[in-house]
Amino acid sequence: MNSTHSEHILRSYDQELGRLKGEIARMGEIAVAQIAAAMDVIERRDSRAAERVIANDDAIDQLEASVSNDVLMLLAKRQPMARDLREVMAALRIASDIERIGDYAANLAKRSIALNLTAAIPPVHNLPTLAEAASEMLTDVLKAYRVSDEKMARTVWDRDVDLDSLYTSLFRESLTYMMEDARNITPATHVLFMAKNIERIGDHVTNIAENIWFLVTGQSLDTPRRKADLTSRMEVRPNDTQ
Amino acid sequence: MNSTHSEHILRSYDQELGRLKGEIARMGEIAVAQIAAAMDVIERRDSRAAERVIANDDAIDQLEASVSNDVLMLLAKRQPMARDLREVMAALRIASDIERIGDYAANLAKRSIALNLTAAIPPVHNLPTLAEAASEMLTDVLKAYRVSDEKMARTVWDRDVDLDSLYTSLFRESLTYMMEDARNITPATHVLFMAKNIERIGDHVTNIAENIWFLVTGQSLDTPRRKADLTSRMEVRPNDTQ
Repeated sequence: MNSTHSEHILRSYDQELGRLKGEIARMGEIAVAQIAAAMDVIERRDSRAAERVIANDDAIDQLEASVSNDVLMLLAKRQPMARDLREVMAALRIASDIERIGDYAANLAKRSIALNLTAAIPPVHNLPTLAEAASEMLTDVLKAYRVSDEKMARTVWDRDVDLDSLYTSLFRESLTYMMEDARNITPATHVLFMAKNIERIGDHVTNIAENIWFLVTGQSLDTPRRKADLTSRMEVRPNDTQ
Repeated sequence: MNSTHSEHILRSYDQELGRLKGEIARMGEIAVAQIAAAMDVIERRDSRAAERVIANDDAIDQLEASVSNDVLMLLAKRQPMARDLREVMAALRIASDIERIGDYAANLAKRSIALNLTAAIPPVHNLPTLAEAASEMLTDVLKAYRVSDEKMARTVWDRDVDLDSLYTSLFRESLTYMMEDARNITPATHVLFMAKNIERIGDHVTNIAENIWFLVTGQSLDTPRRKADLTSRMEVRPNDTQ
């Protein structure tokens, strides 16, 4: 193989990887926009706009299918090794995590339609605080991916503990409203699941951070995790509400 | 390359793929056992045994790490193409879905510990029906994977609608108990999330079915999905309980 030929292969590989990273950046932008749009329709109690947010999730799903397809083509044509192989595998996994984040954003919009059937309950207004924390984590982890900065990724990973704390307090608050008035039970249940959706977005952001760490270092980021979502062990009694 | 050499390569590739499929079969068996163990500790209200179920999830996580590692090695060493490449990518994705299923089983055990802090509420006793449906789907999809039968996988995929229906009725029942007595709110919330965990196990089984379909046919299984989980749009009013 002459050097012109091998340079050509290198350039094409870089181009294809660049295309892959571009698709993932686009997926990430849409996911960030979808989270913001979901919060907007929740605040405005606009069920028709919520249906549009749900429909927009298709764009993320299609991009993920495109990334998967490009990864298969790239693996078959280029047979990348070592760091190049890790780049391609990370792209596949990160696309899958963003696709799930998109599902959660769509689910937030879907539940907002059910919320609009009853009077608004106060815990709803704390959802945007959670969503902003998750969305900032997503924006920052996408930046860390773009510039291949594993330390930046690790910093985002550390922030999930704060999101978990916000989730835990919103969980407790929602249960309190349920106990005060049985009419709050259905809407508060939706708020609980919406808060859980946002907490799960944080988990997928940490998965992305772990993939960036592995991609750059070849090692796994498996420091024992501080876990501040304590709701699965939580007990709130009716008399706590008084 | 002489024929002995190429036969040697083929045999090694088949051996490595066999090893990968063996690890996935083992992951699947542990996941099925973990779901059964979670239901057992819930029924017996045994928090110490629940802690053991939570700890056992490590075995699945370790196997998934091992599958990921083997996939990277196999891609680098063998550079598989076409169906062989699809086999390897399917292994990676299926291992990831089983790992998530393991997380849900562990989460069921974790929430059972919180449930044991208050008196038992009747909806708990409907969890095993859901879990059995999910577990049978998992067993059958693992069989479809073992024998590479895409039609069998498709049949499992179709059954998720029934699991969604079971989930919807348990969701409604739990809300009704919450409305009857505020003391039921905390345990019923845990039951809601536990039911959701099982419903999500079904979603991961359908992902596995879709991967088997793609692996065998090279096409995606994207028939518009009947969706019977209507709980995210559900409204249950207190006076429905009378």
